[in-house]
Amino acid sequence: MLDFKLVQDQQQDLPREGVVQEEDQVYDMIIIGGAPAGFTAAIYAGRAALKTLVLTGPLLGGQVATTQMVENFPGFPEGINGAELAQRMHSQAERFGAHIVTASATGVDFSTSPLTVQSHSATYRGRTVIIATGAFPRRLGVPGEAKFFGRGVSTCATCDGFFYKDKRAVVVGGGDSAIDEGLFLTRFAREVVVVHRRDQLRATKVYQERAFANPKMRFAWDSVVEEILGEQTVTGVRVRNVKSGETSVIEADGVFVYVGMIPGTKLFDSQVELDEQGYVVTDRRQHTSVPGVFAAGDVQSPDFRQVVVAAGTGAIAAKEAEKFLVEHPDMA
Amino acid sequence: MLDFKLVQDQQQDLPREGVVQEEDQVYDMIIIGGAPAGFTAAIYAGRAALKTLVLTGPLLGGQVATTQMVENFPGFPEGINGAELAQRMHSQAERFGAHIVTASATGVDFSTSPLTVQSHSATYRGRTVIIATGAFPRRLGVPGEAKFFGRGVSTCATCDGFFYKDKRAVVVGGGDSAIDEGLFLTRFAREVVVVHRRDQLRATKVYQERAFANPKMRFAWDSVVEEILGEQTVTGVRVRNVKSGETSVIEADGVFVYVGMIPGTKLFDSQVELDEQGYVVTDRRQHTSVPGVFAAGDVQSPDFRQVVVAAGTGAIAAKEAEKFLVEHPDMA
Repeated sequence: MLDFKLVQDQQQDLPREGVVQEEDQVYDMIIIGGAPAGFTAAIYAGRAALKTLVLTGPLLGGQVATTQMVENFPGFPEGINGAELAQRMHSQAERFGAHIVTASATGVDFSTSPLTVQSHSATYRGRTVIIATGAFPRRLGVPGEAKFFGRGVSTCATCDGFFYKDKRAVVVGGGDSAIDEGLFLTRFAREVVVVHRRDQLRATKVYQERAFANPKMRFAWDSVVEEILGEQTVTGVRVRNVKSGETSVIEADGVFVYVGMIPGTKLFDSQVELDEQGYVVTDRRQHTSVPGVFAAGDVQSPDFRQVVVAAGTGAIAAKEAEKFLVEHPDMA
Repeated sequence: MLDFKLVQDQQQDLPREGVVQEEDQVYDMIIIGGAPAGFTAAIYAGRAALKTLVLTGPLLGGQVATTQMVENFPGFPEGINGAELAQRMHSQAERFGAHIVTASATGVDFSTSPLTVQSHSATYRGRTVIIATGAFPRRLGVPGEAKFFGRGVSTCATCDGFFYKDKRAVVVGGGDSAIDEGLFLTRFAREVVVVHRRDQLRATKVYQERAFANPKMRFAWDSVVEEILGEQTVTGVRVRNVKSGETSVIEADGVFVYVGMIPGTKLFDSQVELDEQGYVVTDRRQHTSVPGVFAAGDVQSPDFRQVVVAAGTGAIAAKEAEKFLVEHPDMA
């Protein structure tokens, strides 16, 4: 069983003397990102008998691999551990012949033909590329957050809200995601406290109205979380009022963090069209602005962040890339 | 374990004396169609604590339930029997509280508030509706087709092509799907014979060129399949030339049928916008032309016909319906 943890420093494709190798072969498809979207694309590519490379990136398995229990991925009625689900997709991609390299892409050039993708140690060439690098929730970076992440600290109420029946939750943030997910939590939790560093919400009006009208919702204004408290489980957060400087403790069984997302598109900003938030722009068939380059999963949509949605777009991207190859047989 | 077969005549909600009952309750979400898209929507709805009804329709589990082995649904590296996969999604939807009724919708009225959906024996009311009735491949209706369906007769080369390494396959049809999937099959099969009732293809030019250039592809023009032959397994097809009237046998290990699709939209044509082929028109967020009515899966896209794609759109539809309910709290 693979260890689905951060593998940032583990570059399996490192050359002996730090020389960048150029592989002779040209892949039919290079998939950047080893998480549900990328692995599903690789499964479809493999079953289409395409020569396929997956560069997993730093977080093997993606965000789902850090999730204790996934209950909403269809096909697992009892739920499944997130790392195990990712590992099963990995095995499945490998079974159908994908070459999976545990390394990160460090550069791409989509103006060449074939397309090129670099890692620290090699240059790969592909007739098509699928970008599936995900998007990652910004963390608070406070004591206790890492310790309880995935078991009391979450960035997805849709995924974990169900576990908070009659419990108390803290939501950190004041935008649409924070309030939308906070409202969602009120279906389960007996109290939801929104901790926001300003004295008003950024969320759209309809969400604000709903939030203020909800008897389960409370607000800690002008406040930032300084620490997530607890021994075995989360017991609360220590917050500091940014105006008065005073600190206080809010008791809670769970903390949901919505302080922004970072799409994994640093490498791509001069290569494909990104939207103003930095996500890859795709059409409904997962085509990007560059012919032969597709994108799937959270990197091209901040809206759903669900494993099955990411996997679905991975399948579409692979089918469309396969069609692209049929339609462009003469591409190098 | 549920019996995932045709349940067309089994109407579990039949009233005692044929009286149409009207349920008092109003569901938050009524899902029409009990297959991957519908069940995934139900899983998400249940986890959002919505009061959810699923009307399964005639083919419980959908097309996937008739498939012997599903190898491309991510999460099952060894593959999974299609009926079992459908059954697991069914259990999962039920586990999160969906009320699943084994009956077909016989009428809908989306001009009312709440929306109404009828079965043979009851009228159900819902604040939102998700249409997930699928699309079904037209069958040939010839001897041998039913007997071998799912084990030698297929309507999905993407799903089953992998099983035809070095074998011979017949493709029936002359449109884009037939040729696209026929070309796909040439990656595995040693010979692909396209049986088409006209003397030229309907497929777009690029597919025609690729097909004619492919050394593995042969064509039986002006021909229709009269019977699928075989004892234990498929051994060939008997075809009749529609011009000469002569019959002959083409030896083959499998038959792929592409003679059109029928979207399950008969009930909806005066209710929501359909495209010229009869599919429900949706945007990227699975909204139809009617506020509060969403669609997911094959019924709104003829292009991919993949379980994971259908499931992904089911999750999106449910999330959007949930958002609609938040934004319209006063809806009856």
